[in-house]
Amino acid sequence: MDKQKLIIIGGGFGGLNLARRIDKERWDVTIVDRNNYHSFPPLFYQVASSGLEPASISFPLRREVRGRKFRGVTFHMGEVTEINAERHTVHTQFETLHYDKLVLAAGTTNNFFGIPDLHKHVYTLKSTPEAIRCRNEILARLEEASLCPDPERRARLLTFVVVGGGPAGVEIAGALGEVKRYIIKREYPAIEPDEMRVVLVEGTDALLRAMGPRSSADALKGLEQLLVEVQLGRTMKTYDEGVVTFTDGGTIAAETVIWTAGVTGVPFNITGTDVKASFGNRWEVDEFNQVKGIPDLYAIGDIALMMTPDYPKGHPQVAQTAIQMGRNLARNLSSDKPKPFKYHDKGSMATIGRNRAVADIGKVHLSGFVAWMAWLFVHLMTLLGMRNRAVVLINWTWNYCTFSTGLRLLMRPERYPLRTHWNEK
Amino acid sequence: MDKQKLIIIGGGFGGLNLARRIDKERWDVTIVDRNNYHSFPPLFYQVASSGLEPASISFPLRREVRGRKFRGVTFHMGEVTEINAERHTVHTQFETLHYDKLVLAAGTTNNFFGIPDLHKHVYTLKSTPEAIRCRNEILARLEEASLCPDPERRARLLTFVVVGGGPAGVEIAGALGEVKRYIIKREYPAIEPDEMRVVLVEGTDALLRAMGPRSSADALKGLEQLLVEVQLGRTMKTYDEGVVTFTDGGTIAAETVIWTAGVTGVPFNITGTDVKASFGNRWEVDEFNQVKGIPDLYAIGDIALMMTPDYPKGHPQVAQTAIQMGRNLARNLSSDKPKPFKYHDKGSMATIGRNRAVADIGKVHLSGFVAWMAWLFVHLMTLLGMRNRAVVLINWTWNYCTFSTGLRLLMRPERYPLRTHWNEK
Repeated sequence: MDKQKLIIIGGGFGGLNLARRIDKERWDVTIVDRNNYHSFPPLFYQVASSGLEPASISFPLRREVRGRKFRGVTFHMGEVTEINAERHTVHTQFETLHYDKLVLAAGTTNNFFGIPDLHKHVYTLKSTPEAIRCRNEILARLEEASLCPDPERRARLLTFVVVGGGPAGVEIAGALGEVKRYIIKREYPAIEPDEMRVVLVEGTDALLRAMGPRSSADALKGLEQLLVEVQLGRTMKTYDEGVVTFTDGGTIAAETVIWTAGVTGVPFNITGTDVKASFGNRWEVDEFNQVKGIPDLYAIGDIALMMTPDYPKGHPQVAQTAIQMGRNLARNLSSDKPKPFKYHDKGSMATIGRNRAVADIGKVHLSGFVAWMAWLFVHLMTLLGMRNRAVVLINWTWNYCTFSTGLRLLMRPERYPLRTHWNEK
Repeated sequence: MDKQKLIIIGGGFGGLNLARRIDKERWDVTIVDRNNYHSFPPLFYQVASSGLEPASISFPLRREVRGRKFRGVTFHMGEVTEINAERHTVHTQFETLHYDKLVLAAGTTNNFFGIPDLHKHVYTLKSTPEAIRCRNEILARLEEASLCPDPERRARLLTFVVVGGGPAGVEIAGALGEVKRYIIKREYPAIEPDEMRVVLVEGTDALLRAMGPRSSADALKGLEQLLVEVQLGRTMKTYDEGVVTFTDGGTIAAETVIWTAGVTGVPFNITGTDVKASFGNRWEVDEFNQVKGIPDLYAIGDIALMMTPDYPKGHPQVAQTAIQMGRNLARNLSSDKPKPFKYHDKGSMATIGRNRAVADIGKVHLSGFVAWMAWLFVHLMTLLGMRNRAVVLINWTWNYCTFSTGLRLLMRPERYPLRTHWNEK
């Protein structure tokens, strides 16, 4: 039988798992991604805090698809500008591709909830370049503070506000807490550790709300031990001229705000249909990941909204959902007896600093060093799924154990934008 | 006795060697650098060709100066905006520092010989961010070419012109030749290796003119084996709209031009004196590295112009000169019997691809694999002079031996410039 053309938009956890497992005798598979690499979002905060280098959590897609299990998969770099659901076409800045079936697997980006210009003033952690920028800004703030004689400006330079108490917020706040506790004394003799202030702000009444109450409480305790000020039940309203204003009227003067408070599906311009994305810019799918109302279109991972009795508001937007949906869709597209998707919750975890974590695995709650070891193990295993990751492992272990500061590199990007068509976004 | 204040502008080979060896009982030493890291220029071409990651050749200065031999040395990040030779002050965007003695050790930057706007259109290799940009652009060209159906545009995208036949030009051309020979087939199935064209253009009649004629000839032969077209005696006149025009009237259509054709001293605005920089923007110094006509000002390394009977046009602008001048000045400033500088030529070398090189060590000429081993040894030894370089060594060996393509990461910088004062220039 003639091969059918499957296009997957996004080389993340969902897209790669789908491409790896689908029957390549039956499908001619193309992965389209705006980047030439797969990245590992759970560790973006490590790049932002100078703990890992970008290359340790980024894997060129061309190298991945050279693997045995990907034989027959093609990679096209490109930013999708339009999808025509009627004509079955995908348009990028470079080409127009035709598909028989199309899978949206592009994940999410930052949600600034309409606060004007906020994206220009805060730093974010939803991609490797964003994490690198965040690293540079943190380092720049410390350098400037170490030279600044004006106490008021100095305080602003040394105040780091993290907005959002989910895993990303907790993890970056913990990493900043460790800078305050361990790095300042060692590397910035002109700064007193007490001058640095790390504030984590969360709108609800608990950290890590997706996890159990014991994890929330342990995270709070862990962060407080790292000298992070956690402010619960507080919502940021604006951030202007270096001052965060909250809805309760309070303010914090800070030169650095790291925004982890919300995500939204990567937007797609889909023409030839009246169907629109649902809330959170996610595409509503049935239990076979088929987008409702658009034939031959699928969505998996964070960008899919699959509402089931177990998950009436959609499935959690985490790596496991994307991996499992990718695998299930691969199975369904490779067989004639499609199986509805069923999510297996493998638990969730978050680190608090470099040697403790919290984890909820089924009904089991872990915390402290044991949870951290579990966290490390799970992430290393996932990373080792990528090709040639021995070096990453060695690197990581080395940096982690030696508390290495060798990655505290403020590498400003070159002034000129990339040539040709790569800079649009 | 009271300590005197010594300021060193530039944390490169010269500045670090001076700071390491100077008597810190006698001198209160501050290193001022626009970056927070020391970098290793001989390997910039490796970053540009995705062979090494930026962090492997960049070393945070704060970590370096924590070393035992640096005790008492302070690091200040900052871009020097003015030096007042009369008042003995150094101004950066953050502060004004007073000095008793000042050392210029800032090295060189690209020289575009006044060709208008050239810096906007070509890629360069004089800093880590420039090398990262070059890497991104090379990768972007290959991605776009692999999708481009128009044969004329495809040819332009796949033509890489390197201007300048010195070590940097030879090394990056060799690395691009290896992409053509080995990488294209493996990772870009939509491109035929023969479609890629690498042209190295040199204005004089030989490559590596600073080395002996046998090295020049071996480099030429080596590059030709890597399928690099070497064009000698050809001078670029302009580069506009994707076309390189030479003074002989010839043209090459190429989307990518890598410029290694000239360097010039990093400019300094020195007030309170009538003395100006000499040719190549270098500061004329006596044999004690004292800048002629400006009391208490020294210059070492690439930015110093020391003309002696042996070197009537100044010393070679290479790492060894900087290292030796830094050490000699350290000795002179630590003792009451200053010794004139004497350059010990330890030879010079350049790689051609990943397993051959040319080297001239005294009267000995080496080439091929033996020279490459010598090259590797010398650079590893120098790198190992930095702290905690075991990991770099492991990484490097691994990547080199496995021909790893794991660093072929097109990481576009974030759109927004760095906050506050870091983005000038």
